[in-house]
Amino acid sequence: MSYARTMAEQHPGEHPVDVQALTAAIDAAYDCAQACTACADACLSEEDVASQVRCIRLDLDCADVCATTGRVLSRQTAFDADVTRAVLEACIAACAACAEECEVHGEHGMDHCATCAEACRRCEQACRDLLAAIG
Amino acid sequence: MSYARTMAEQHPGEHPVDVQALTAAIDAAYDCAQACTACADACLSEEDVASQVRCIRLDLDCADVCATTGRVLSRQTAFDADVTRAVLEACIAACAACAEECEVHGEHGMDHCATCAEACRRCEQACRDLLAAIG
Amino acid sequence: MSYARTMAEQHPGEHPVDVQALTAAIDAAYDCAQACTACADACLSEEDVASQVRCIRLDLDCADVCATTGRVLSRQTAFDADVTRAVLEACIAACAACAEECEVHGEHGMDHCATCAEACRRCEQACRDLLAAIG
Amino acid sequence: MSYARTMAEQHPGEHPVDVQALTAAIDAAYDCAQACTACADACLSEEDVASQVRCIRLDLDCADVCATTGRVLSRQTAFDADVTRAVLEACIAACAACAEECEVHGEHGMDHCATCAEACRRCEQACRDLLAAIG
Repeated sequence: MSYARTMAEQHPGEHPVDVQALTAAIDAAYDCAQACTACADACLSEEDVASQVRCIRLDLDCADVCATTGRVLSRQTAFDADVTRAVLEACIAACAACAEECEVHGEHGMDHCATCAEACRRCEQACRDLLAAIG
Repeated sequence: MSYARTMAEQHPGEHPVDVQALTAAIDAAYDCAQACTACADACLSEEDVASQVRCIRLDLDCADVCATTGRVLSRQTAFDADVTRAVLEACIAACAACAEECEVHGEHGMDHCATCAEACRRCEQACRDLLAAIG
Repeated sequence: MSYARTMAEQHPGEHPVDVQALTAAIDAAYDCAQACTACADACLSEEDVASQVRCIRLDLDCADVCATTGRVLSRQTAFDADVTRAVLEACIAACAACAEECEVHGEHGMDHCATCAEACRRCEQACRDLLAAIG
Repeated sequence: MSYARTMAEQHPGEHPVDVQALTAAIDAAYDCAQACTACADACLSEEDVASQVRCIRLDLDCADVCATTGRVLSRQTAFDADVTRAVLEACIAACAACAEECEVHGEHGMDHCATCAEACRRCEQACRDLLAAIG
């Protein structure tokens, strides 16, 4: 029950960018931040935690970058296209790296990694779509 | 499309607390963090921004506290009841203060404040419910 | 080269609380947030990572709580004593739990845990001092 | 009294990049995150808050991006050059935009903006130096 779309529509200023693409990216970023935080923790509870070290590290990075991306995108006042683009590029890089790692573990039966990879790929795509909308 | 419930169920460890109460609080915390970030920004675009100063400040605090609460609750490994309780108490305080302020502005026609107040009250209640479940 | 003291003194509003106690807590919170993030990562590189699981979890919680505490304390506009007190209590709980765990590992030769424990104890004390100053 | 250098030297893994450039960037990122959070709040207490709206927005973005940059750089395990580079580029963009705005206000007598601009320029340079060291 995200409020992102409602909050964007109730904003008193002008929308700097397509609201549909914007709120899809906001939701995807917050959802991915949560999934990555939970995946890092689930990896810590795996019997063979040593094999999850790279996954945990990329999860933590991706959680941080997505959290910041969700915040920056939630702001529509005094929109700065350069900062927004650079943040979206960082988010795409973090999501792609984390998804790639999680997909490998997901194929080996770690369901939390498969779910996290899905969250990362959805966020990566939403950021690419928004980047295209900003131009 | 939050992954909180799925991630919690796919966690390889034991659940330290009722999964329904836990994931309701996680979702409410992330949703409230987004709403408060967006509300602070919407307040910045109001014509009479000077009258929104206290609201912006409480929004920013509440966004930070909810973001941290959502992260701490997303971790189930090596659960620490004392830390969890203290974080939930801080989240309840931040949400209550922000909701109280936003409700006043909501009654004066600021729809983003009304929506944000709803998000804060939902998060406050979810934290109280989880606190009761932890015992 | 922290700017916390300078920024607090250049703030155009009135100080809601003793500036010395306030900026000591701000600096301690940011420093502890960094130390805990680095300690979680150093634990991930330990040969026997399985024995570090609880330490990593408490490091991550403490990093998040300290980061939020540092932000809330950096705001002096429309100071809210209730929210500030609850955040300080959460920070004290997170720092104490993390310090206790890190001290054990520090005694067993893990220098990064010993340093992190020192950062946690310093932050815990600075939060207690500020809590006393707020009254 | 930052622990960044000590923590980096006590890390059990290999350093993925020059420790001096790395820890200078970590310290600059955390210091800038604090300065930007404090500057946004100081702007909220200015008599003519309406003229500070763009500054507040860029301060908030910069605080978030710097906080995430400080965290990502504090991790040395399973170093990923692509993610690190993209995060540094985002940090450079956020710091440059915020510094440019704060410098204008600093020239008009707002000392907190002048200090914040200094923090942003120092962080921007430290990120550029680290980017060069990564290659």
